[in-house]
Amino acid sequence: MPIAQCLMSIAYFCQMTLQYTFELLGTFFFAISGALAIRDHHNDLFGATFTGFVTAIGGGTLRDMMLGSYPLVWIGDIHFLYAILAGALTAYFFFRFLMGLRKTFLLFDTLGISFFTILGVEKALSLGVRPEIAAIMGMFTAIMGGVIRDVLTNETPVLFRKEIYATACLAGAILYLVLLNLDISRNLNLVISSVVIIVVRLLAVKFKLALPGFKR
Amino acid sequence: MPIAQCLMSIAYFCQMTLQYTFELLGTFFFAISGALAIRDHHNDLFGATFTGFVTAIGGGTLRDMMLGSYPLVWIGDIHFLYAILAGALTAYFFFRFLMGLRKTFLLFDTLGISFFTILGVEKALSLGVRPEIAAIMGMFTAIMGGVIRDVLTNETPVLFRKEIYATACLAGAILYLVLLNLDISRNLNLVISSVVIIVVRLLAVKFKLALPGFKR
Amino acid sequence: MPIAQCLMSIAYFCQMTLQYTFELLGTFFFAISGALAIRDHHNDLFGATFTGFVTAIGGGTLRDMMLGSYPLVWIGDIHFLYAILAGALTAYFFFRFLMGLRKTFLLFDTLGISFFTILGVEKALSLGVRPEIAAIMGMFTAIMGGVIRDVLTNETPVLFRKEIYATACLAGAILYLVLLNLDISRNLNLVISSVVIIVVRLLAVKFKLALPGFKR
Repeated sequence: MPIAQCLMSIAYFCQMTLQYTFELLGTFFFAISGALAIRDHHNDLFGATFTGFVTAIGGGTLRDMMLGSYPLVWIGDIHFLYAILAGALTAYFFFRFLMGLRKTFLLFDTLGISFFTILGVEKALSLGVRPEIAAIMGMFTAIMGGVIRDVLTNETPVLFRKEIYATACLAGAILYLVLLNLDISRNLNLVISSVVIIVVRLLAVKFKLALPGFKR
Repeated sequence: MPIAQCLMSIAYFCQMTLQYTFELLGTFFFAISGALAIRDHHNDLFGATFTGFVTAIGGGTLRDMMLGSYPLVWIGDIHFLYAILAGALTAYFFFRFLMGLRKTFLLFDTLGISFFTILGVEKALSLGVRPEIAAIMGMFTAIMGGVIRDVLTNETPVLFRKEIYATACLAGAILYLVLLNLDISRNLNLVISSVVIIVVRLLAVKFKLALPGFKR
Repeated sequence: MPIAQCLMSIAYFCQMTLQYTFELLGTFFFAISGALAIRDHHNDLFGATFTGFVTAIGGGTLRDMMLGSYPLVWIGDIHFLYAILAGALTAYFFFRFLMGLRKTFLLFDTLGISFFTILGVEKALSLGVRPEIAAIMGMFTAIMGGVIRDVLTNETPVLFRKEIYATACLAGAILYLVLLNLDISRNLNLVISSVVIIVVRLLAVKFKLALPGFKR
């Protein structure tokens, strides 16, 4: 991107609504966390950009393909692609710095899942599905990008790791739907539900909280 | 689900046609078999429900997304979600009992694939595709939920295991199409084709039948 | 396929345009490379046909599902299914011969990715997306069939192996878009861009060229 286009993009960002900024930021955070997830056996710039891309767009793409909602967000609006490239390049050039910060990966990922959960619920509701389906779609928007990335890189999907992860998203999505039903203002609801997801997820990691397992 | 809603759901079931009952039962069986497929490294209630969900809806979802048929079955009709939850909870609370029954997993899975194959063929035909494509779609409806589950849980997909599995579904789908062409009544055709899939699959497991391999 | 239908198919092929022939040939090559990719633990005829099928249709299917373009190519035109079956049977009956030819797999795969990249770019452009998206779609058309195959068979996706692979497709796609902008004739553009992908890929394998990795 030449400099002029960069500046124009920045100006463009400034006039955006809160929601659009959140969507682009969530995409950027997810692309960083996806690119940082790279492992030794596939550690070049393309691989990092690809995993960043898949992590960032996977959940929303699956949601929209399941709901038959076209065009997909990142196909209809090229700024998402730029946000992903910016995230992948940030991960590449500040790799040591970002990895040096303990819990960096966790933080970016947690911000990403909390934004995307609520945005996914809202998108699904706007397409007229029932609340139960909207809650699932919110969770899918948040986690399926990471799940697809993990499948592609032969990791055990984040979904099945011990600490509460997808469940935090599902709880946040349900909370959003309950507060919506109680006529809480949308911006307040957005903030409360996002924060609950972030707090639940961070507490789960800190205290290694997990759901009850199968008895065998 | 509160008790009143449970009773209403049961009453609702009773008035359904044979096909709809089969669809919900197939979904329920698949959710049980998916939840039972859970392994040690991802053995909590959420993980079991998720694998049950993916196993139950994966095949039909892929079929409908490939055929461009919206809304997806489980998004348009909330009873499928309840059938999946019922299956996952059944697997969770009767885990020891179900695992104690030898071949339980096999039985539920075999019932699931036989119902779903025929339903998938019929759905594809109703959308106007050629019989060759309808046969593939029937097989996909039956097996792809399990394949996606196996990919997510890092198992070798059921597809590639020795005994005849997907081939039984494909054979049943082709048989259904042949009998349809011979003007056999639909209900009779449904029963014959389903039973053939079940018998072929169970015989294949019992006698370890497999297709000829590559010569090397 | 009875003989008469075979002959009719051959006659049909002969009257096709260059593009259509390329599409069917690419599908045939991909089906061979997919079927040859089979490993010991899933080495029967069905498994080979299935991996051939997934390799051949995976990329285009994902592209069209992302772009909301229906019917999918292989659902709307049955000749693609026949090309895949022909490829899988070729791989099965000439297995030793094909494996004996060193680099056979590489050659078929390279021809497949070069054809499919350009065809994917053109299809995406014809659906009205921006060039950046069309380049990604071209690359996806070429590589995602192999990626899905690798995921299903528990291999590390071809995408993440050392030598330049997906990057060659992306470079070819971008070259095609640049030449298109320069008003080069379409057929010439098609040949140049395809050949560049083939040459880059083969040189990368021969000299083990790779992109710069993460510094750690």
